[in-house]
Order: sequence, then C-alpha cells, then structure tokens
Amino acid sequence: MVVAIMLVPQSMAYALLAGLPPQAGLYASILPLLIYAVLGTSRVLVVGPVAIVSLMVASSLEPLAAAGSEQYVQHAITLALLCGIFLVLLGLLRVGFLVNFMSHPVLAGFTSAVALIIGFSQLKHLLGLEIPSSHNIHKIFWLVIKDISDVNVVTLAISSTSLLLLAACRQMVRPFVRRGLIGEIAAEVLSKAMPLLVVVLMIALTWFLGLAENFGVDVIGQIPMGLPALAVPAPDWSLWRELLPVAALISMIGFLEGISIAKSLASKRRRKVIPNQELVAIGAANIAASFTGGLPVAGSISRSVVNHAAGAKTPVSVIIAALLVGLTLLLFAPILQFLPKAVLASIIIVAIASFIDFRSLRHAWAYNKADGLSYLAAFAAVLALGPEFGILIGIGVSLSLYIWRTSRPHIFIVGQVEGSETYRNTLSHDVRIFRKLLLVRVDESLYFANGDYLEEQVLRYVADRPEIKDFVLICSAVNDIDASALDTLERLIERLRDAGVRMHLSELKDPVMDRLQNVHLFAMLAPGRVFQSTHDAVMALAGDDEQQASLD
Amino acid sequence: MVVAIMLVPQSMAYALLAGLPPQAGLYASILPLLIYAVLGTSRVLVVGPVAIVSLMVASSLEPLAAAGSEQYVQHAITLALLCGIFLVLLGLLRVGFLVNFMSHPVLAGFTSAVALIIGFSQLKHLLGLEIPSSHNIHKIFWLVIKDISDVNVVTLAISSTSLLLLAACRQMVRPFVRRGLIGEIAAEVLSKAMPLLVVVLMIALTWFLGLAENFGVDVIGQIPMGLPALAVPAPDWSLWRELLPVAALISMIGFLEGISIAKSLASKRRRKVIPNQELVAIGAANIAASFTGGLPVAGSISRSVVNHAAGAKTPVSVIIAALLVGLTLLLFAPILQFLPKAVLASIIIVAIASFIDFRSLRHAWAYNKADGLSYLAAFAAVLALGPEFGILIGIGVSLSLYIWRTSRPHIFIVGQVEGSETYRNTLSHDVRIFRKLLLVRVDESLYFANGDYLEEQVLRYVADRPEIKDFVLICSAVNDIDASALDTLERLIERLRDAGVRMHLSELKDPVMDRLQNVHLFAMLAPGRVFQSTHDAVMALAGDDEQQASLD
Repeated sequence: MVVAIMLVPQSMAYALLAGLPPQAGLYASILPLLIYAVLGTSRVLVVGPVAIVSLMVASSLEPLAAAGSEQYVQHAITLALLCGIFLVLLGLLRVGFLVNFMSHPVLAGFTSAVALIIGFSQLKHLLGLEIPSSHNIHKIFWLVIKDISDVNVVTLAISSTSLLLLAACRQMVRPFVRRGLIGEIAAEVLSKAMPLLVVVLMIALTWFLGLAENFGVDVIGQIPMGLPALAVPAPDWSLWRELLPVAALISMIGFLEGISIAKSLASKRRRKVIPNQELVAIGAANIAASFTGGLPVAGSISRSVVNHAAGAKTPVSVIIAALLVGLTLLLFAPILQFLPKAVLASIIIVAIASFIDFRSLRHAWAYNKADGLSYLAAFAAVLALGPEFGILIGIGVSLSLYIWRTSRPHIFIVGQVEGSETYRNTLSHDVRIFRKLLLVRVDESLYFANGDYLEEQVLRYVADRPEIKDFVLICSAVNDIDASALDTLERLIERLRDAGVRMHLSELKDPVMDRLQNVHLFAMLAPGRVFQSTHDAVMALAGDDEQQASLD
Repeated sequence: MVVAIMLVPQSMAYALLAGLPPQAGLYASILPLLIYAVLGTSRVLVVGPVAIVSLMVASSLEPLAAAGSEQYVQHAITLALLCGIFLVLLGLLRVGFLVNFMSHPVLAGFTSAVALIIGFSQLKHLLGLEIPSSHNIHKIFWLVIKDISDVNVVTLAISSTSLLLLAACRQMVRPFVRRGLIGEIAAEVLSKAMPLLVVVLMIALTWFLGLAENFGVDVIGQIPMGLPALAVPAPDWSLWRELLPVAALISMIGFLEGISIAKSLASKRRRKVIPNQELVAIGAANIAASFTGGLPVAGSISRSVVNHAAGAKTPVSVIIAALLVGLTLLLFAPILQFLPKAVLASIIIVAIASFIDFRSLRHAWAYNKADGLSYLAAFAAVLALGPEFGILIGIGVSLSLYIWRTSRPHIFIVGQVEGSETYRNTLSHDVRIFRKLLLVRVDESLYFANGDYLEEQVLRYVADRPEIKDFVLICSAVNDIDASALDTLERLIERLRDAGVRMHLSELKDPVMDRLQNVHLFAMLAPGRVFQSTHDAVMALAGDDEQQASLD
C-alpha cells in the first residue's frame, strides 16, 4: 500500500515531466507492474514512470509534436512499444552485456546533468510562470529572471509549503519520535506517505478556496475516469525509424537504473537477479505500457527501496499496488483535477535532488584524472547538447578512455635479481641485464588497439641496442591475444628477423597457449622458442653473456 | 622515376574512380608529395590518390552532386580540406591512437568488400557500356547482364589486352630472363613501367586508328594543360557540416593504409615513423591537395613499396616524382586525351585485386570464431550499406567484441596443490579446497564492463556455499582497476559483509596497489586484509579448516 501511495503522485508527476497528461503516468503504473510481477526475477522491483526516462521522452518528442497534443501522446505510446521491443530483443539475444558500455563516472555525470535539467524544467510550475518549455538551463534561467515580476504568489506559496513538507518531513517528525509521541514505524510510514498527504491537502485547499479560478493557480485539470482501453498502436514505419535510436538509448538508460537497484536489493537477501531475463521482463512491461496508453517505464529506485524496506517478500506487494492505482482511476479521477501542477513539480524536485551527485566526481577525480574527466565530459555534453547526444558522447568517452588506457600498456625491460630466479623491472630495481638478450614484459592482454604499440616499443628497444641477438616476450600478464595482435606478433617476428634478432615467448598462460596451438605462430617463431619460465629462457639464451661476464 | 611512371596512370585512374576528371588525380600528385617530403617521418612513403579513399569519395559525394560536374569537383576539394584539417588536429592533439579503433579482421573485411565494389564499378568502363554508376554490386551485375548485347567489342579488346599485359607481365617476362635475354633489373623495371607502357601503347592505337570516333571507344578527353592554380576553397559551413563525418572516416581509413606501409618499410631498415607526426604530415598533404584542385590523398601501398624497392634513401625520390608529374601536365596533357577509360579501369582492377583477402578470414576464423564473425560483419555491412556505414559498423563490432570478451573474464575458484604453496583452478586440477575460505582468481583487468560480472560470480559462489566466512580475491592478473570497478569492489565488500563474509585481496600488482593507496578501499576492507601472497592469506585465514581437517 505504501508503494501505491508513492506511485500515484510520482507517476502523474513524471507524466507531466514527459509532456504528457497525468493519466498517462497512471496508465503506465497498472498493467506494466502486473507483467513485471509475472516475468521479472526481482521480488521487490517496482516498475513505472521514472524521472530520467520521462525527461528523455520529452526531449526526444518535443521536436516532433506539440507537448500534450494527441499526436504527442501517440508518439509516446509508440516510443514505449519500441523501447519494449528493443529490450526484449536484447534479452532474447542474450546481449545484456551491452548495457555495460558506460562507466560509472560517465553515468554519474549524465544523471547529475539530467537531474539539473529536470529541476530547471520544473521552475515554471513552481513559480506559476508561463514560459516555453526548454531543456536549456541557461535559457530557462534568463526567461525566469525576465518574468520574475509575473510570479504567481499563491502558486509559490503552494510550492514552498509542498517542498518544505516533502524535504523536511523526516526532520520535523524526529522530535515527536524522540519524545515518544509517535512510534518509529508510524514516523516511517508518515514520511513515505507525505507525497500523498501533500497531494490530498493541496487538492482540498485548491478545491475549497477556488485557487484555480480566483488566483490563477495552474491545476492538472480533467482526468478521464476509468481504466485505460487496450489498444495496439498502428505501425508507422517512418516514425518507427525516426524513434528507434532514441528508444534504444532511453530503454538502456532506464534498464541500467532498474537493474542496479534490483541487484542491490537482491544481494541484501543473498538472492540474485538474471540480467537477460530482466531485459525481457522490463521490455514486456514497456510493451504493456504502450498497449494501455502509457509512456516508457523502468524500474524505480525510490519505490523499489520503499517496497523492500516495507518488507515485501514476493511480487504480490507490487500486484496490490497496481490494483490500488487502478482503483484510484476508477474512484478518485474527478478529485485529482484540482491538483496544482506546483505540487507535482515539488514532488519531482525532491525526488531528483539526490541524483545530483558531485561526490562521484570528487571520488573519481581523486582516483584517477581520466575517470574524473569522463564525468565532466558527460555532464557538460548533456547540458550543452541534451540527454541523447550527451549519453552517446558519454559512451564514446567511456570506450575511448578504456581503449586509450589499454592501448599504451605497461611495457618494460626486466633483468635478473642477482643470484635468484626472479626478474624485475630494470627501471625500479637494481637487476642484472644481459648484453645480447633482451627480456621484455607486457602487463596487458594483447588486442587490436595495443598490438602496434607493443611492436613500436620492442622495435625501439632493439634499435637502441644493436648488440641484441635474442628477445624474450614475457607473457605472464597476457590474459588473451586476439587475431589482430596475433598478426602483429607474426609481423614482429619477421621484422626482428630482418634485423637479425630471434624472438622467443615465455610464461604463456594455459588458455592463451591452447589457442596458439591452432595457428602457425610457434612454427614462425622457430628457431625462437617458447619457454615455461623466464629463467629457463635466460639459462638457454644467456650463455654468451655468462662468458662475457667472466671475461670482464 | 619509376614512381612517377606508376603515379601518372594510377592517379588518373583513381580520379576517375572518385568520379572526378583525370587531371584532379594529377593535381593531387604534385604539391601533396612535396609537402609530405618536408613534414613526413617516413623516407619512402608516396602519397597521392589511392583506390579505397577514391571510392569513399565517390560514394559520399554522389548523393550530393552529379559526378564530374563543377559542383562535384568543388565538393571533392572541400572534402580534401576537411580530411586535412581533421588529420592535422588528431596529430596536434596527439590522439593518433584513435585510428586503432578497428581490429585487423574488420579492416580486412572492409577492404575486401570495398575492393569488390571497386571492381564491379569498373565493369562499365571495361565493357564500354553506358550504365548508371552505382555501388550496389548486385544491381551492377544485373544491369550488365541486361545490356550485355551492347558491349563495345573494341573497348573489350582494349581492356583484355591491358589486363593481360598488366596482370601477366611478370610471368611473360620470366622466360626471357631465364634464357638470359633480359637482365633481372631490366625485367623488374619493365614490370613496374608496364602501366605506363600500356597507357602509351593504347593512346597511340586510339590516336592513329581513330578508335574514339570510328568505334565509339570512351576516352578521357581534353585535359587542361599546365599546372593547377593555387586556390583556397571558400568555407561553406552547411556543406562542411554535411561532409565532416565522412571526412573523418575517409581520412582515418586513408591514414591507416599509409601508416601501416610506412611502419613496415621503416622497420626493414631499423628506422621508425612517428604516428602523430605522420597525422600532421598526411593532413597537410590533404590540405595541399585541396588548395591545388585535387582530391583526398593517402599514403599508397603499391607506390611506396616500389619506391623502397627502387632504392630510395631520402625523400628526394618523391620530390623528383612530383616534378615529373608536373612536367607531364606541362608537356603531355594534349596527348592524354586519347587515353581510353578502359585502360584506366584495367589499371584499377589489377591494383585492387590483391586487396580482396579471404585468407585473412580463414586465418581469423581458425584462430577464433568471434574475430571471423567480425570480418564477415564488416564485409556484409559494406556490401549491403556502403563503405561509410560499413566502416562504422566495423568499428562498432570491433569494440563490442572486445568489450564482450573482457566483460566475461576467466573467473575461477582455486585450491591448494596438496603440500605446496601453489594454488590452481579447482576445475582442472586436483587441489584442496577450504570449507570456510573461498579463493577466487580473476584473469583480467577490472573495468566498467566486467565489474558487475565479477560481482555476480562471487555472489553466486557465496550463495552456493553458505558456510563461507572469508573470501580472497587473487589479483595476480589484474593490471588495472578503473573507477567503476573500484565502486563495484566497494559495493561487493558491503554486500559480502551483509551476507556475513569478510573480503580480502591478495597479490596486488605494484601500480594497482599504488593507486588504491589514494582511496579508502583498504579502510573499507577492514577487518578484511591485503595479503602479499595467496599462501599468506591461507595461512592466516584457514586455521579453522586445518582443525576441521584433523578432526575428520
């Protein structure tokens, strides 16, 4: 029940954020929950409209149709269908790993910027101003400043009261708990029910005082009574093609939010969720949202946490919540029309405030500059170019950063710790090196992006020391060699041979060794050899150097 | 001189392939060579028009303007400028590593498909047919079949003779060399000069027999005499924005071809090329091509190899070649008008035949299926969607494949080899495991794409064995931990703690250890510890198990 109490105001608020009539949010909170309850692997995840997905719906549909128009509503329904199909396909193809294409700093930067945009987009509702909707916070800021004299004071009073009640409820209740006037559990329920209490309070005030007619307070207006009709959207191929890229992005972002909270809650009880099955379940929920006139949905962090904390053990809790939302539509729709938009805006503001996460930036920056920069890149890209481009740039930055990091692996010459069988970096240890034998270790798997760098480094070492006759590549940290790196190794063998140097390998791992058995690398290596250990290689190849050493 | 002899017919042929008048190819073979000679780090690389770049120019410009029109020529000039600016920027920003975003199998698949398209695109010139140009080999095939009765027999004779002379020259000369009638060197020069000889022969035949007027043989027609004028293209921002993405792709593909041959030739003499400087040099060459009315250029494999084989030791050889091309324009332009297009088409066919490389597919497939599939994906994408989309899909496939491979790293439980300090995989070795202590090794660096997988696996192991009290993650193969994986480790510590399990780390590498000192991971770990070796961890943590073992 506590979930339903959160779900009703939140789903209306997020529909508003998406530029849709409030009932779309309610419609998206009935059948999708039931479908997820059947197909999902988490017992506590609550699907439905969520803030980030709703903002992305708005920013991708506003260029195509007027917000709130019938066409806009149809576009949102189509978008939900495409999101659903896309997620189901990902799940059936078992390519759920694709949703990991973004690093945490990029995701945190993206989310923080989106939360900022959402906050600014609600300013007009909070202040009762008539300004065009925009996702450019700079533009909104100046529009608000320009029209600051037109602020509707009654609306501002409603917003301030709502924000205060929602944000400070816990703090306000605490003294009463301490004095024993309210029990711990009652206090907890009170704070979770606060959005609903605020909604009821503000509806009552608006109704009895006629705030909408007498003071121009903007309310959500008529909501059709009754449950949504089941309808399959007619396929419109040109629209589908236009919406598909953004559907892919929206559904992946939504999925990431849901799966992270589902995993976290499951592990608290030593349970697990199955990501590919989750893709199918969330996808089916989106298709259900589409068929019932809703908007794209995802697993909600706040509602799932509440569901878990309230003691939900099976999906029955979610089913009950869905039924209560349906009941609301059947019984209370006429009353909801008096709800001021400022109240929903306040609910959004309080819900997204926690997404603005600069701690992650500090954290990432302290750990390594590159991760910090990728946070900033995603953050700046979202603010400058909007969430869709921002997320693409974030993915690009994540991958580039990783490729960059692994494309210049740690490669160093090693030498023998005097009198032992241990070999260490010559730059950081006092070790013995050999005149005609070069020992090099590379601390990274070899693949298409770093093969060339390895080759360059080795050829440079060889060019710098013309007396080298044998070269041993120590592969103790090479977990994999792909086909490109294999080509590079073959070319390196040839180039070294041209330069009069024999190449050898040592300390190959078993899986790498197995794979290399199938190709002709070892044959090409001859007369170069493959050694079990680097010490074996030194014993076999450094004979000359021993002599040299004794002659000195 | 031998380079100039190849350069004149090839550059005209590749201009034709790009849909440009032949002189554009010659213009792109003078100043760009001189600029590269000054700025480049390879002593033998010969820049100029190359086949793949020319095809991509055609496929990206044909939707925008009629091939051969004045507007088309201007677009090509603009494209060269944008390619140049892009490469110079990459070089100055020192992000040359970005060109490594494609694996070898993808590159081979891409190149093979492009070579096939180029081959089919020349069919109409070889057969003397009037069919619209297209990059759809299926469509070309049927158009040719439909019009097969219109084949110009004289043109076909010219093509066949040219192809035979060009392709079989080496084989035909060999008997004469064997009998001592021609020296080795003379034979080599003859085979390199064959394109020019064919050009001269066919010009003479066409001229004296009036093949163009009497038999309808298509010739290249009037070429303006004299050197190109220097002109800076006027910036047209909307055109620039349209061409920029394709310029980025074209210049990267062109650069990859050039750098690979430059590196290969440099290492034969134990020299090296500097990639970032090469980016600037090739970029400047493209800008020079743009200013002199040419088309995008790149380092040519065939001409560079010839230059190297002919004994070029300094860039002076390239400077002489550029001057000879200039001389050709000053003196022989009126004669070139009689050159049949069929001859240029034959030169293109012979030059690109070696790019069709199915051996790489077999090679990659034998080594691992994923690399083989990525070849096929790039090959099919180019044929189905054209080179630009093909290359993007290729990049996507390369990266996805790599992420996929590293996103499910080799994770396994290890046990103690009885009576030793060695720890091995429990699945493949007969080792001792511990009742309350779980030892897990992960053979991959930890980063955003595989942190979640590690977490899932570990939580699964722990869920399966409720008596586990301590968990040691062996990091001997972890070369790096990024900020996302750090988050995951912190979360894993907490989740394990919730489940009553202490987490420990062992065998951290020095660079990883250093970086982790700056964050609070070790503090979060407590009472879990960081052990130098896995054996230390077992000695400290498996006390209970020892007792257990003796009680049994």
